[in-house]
Amino acid sequence: MRNKAVFYHVGCPVCAAAERGVVTAIDRSRFDVEAVNLAEHKARIPEAQKSGIKSVPALLLDGQPYHINFGADLSTIK
Amino acid sequence: MRNKAVFYHVGCPVCAAAERGVVTAIDRSRFDVEAVNLAEHKARIPEAQKSGIKSVPALLLDGQPYHINFGADLSTIK
Repeated sequence: MRNKAVFYHVGCPVCAAAERGVVTAIDRSRFDVEAVNLAEHKARIPEAQKSGIKSVPALLLDGQPYHINFGADLSTIK
Repeated sequence: MRNKAVFYHVGCPVCAAAERGVVTAIDRSRFDVEAVNLAEHKARIPEAQKSGIKSVPALLLDGQPYHINFGADLSTIK
């Protein structure tokens, strides 16, 4: 079974750096990686919050949230 | 050229979770991964600080620091 990784971001500079660094380093032979811009897809904010994500950029790996540095709090995404 | 990843931690629960999650997901065919317990190897704290690392767990990918969630501030490691 392939593993699932979801990268949540809002297109901020900190988000872009995390994507270039951490997300690029993920082993694509084991992980399906989806990048979700929550500023563009606000309907997916509740899903992120339910997974324990409080800020972006964040990576959800097999359901576990990992906040990477700090770009923006989820509550401030308008 | 192979890429270099250094995972700094102090053996804390948040650190262990980040290692199981994010560090395990790194593509080992492209990255050499080193894990450094800064509580056991305090001599390497200045090196981490110089790289911009302020807390653990953190991942240094090709010289760029990525703090993953929050376990402990580097200044509190005794």
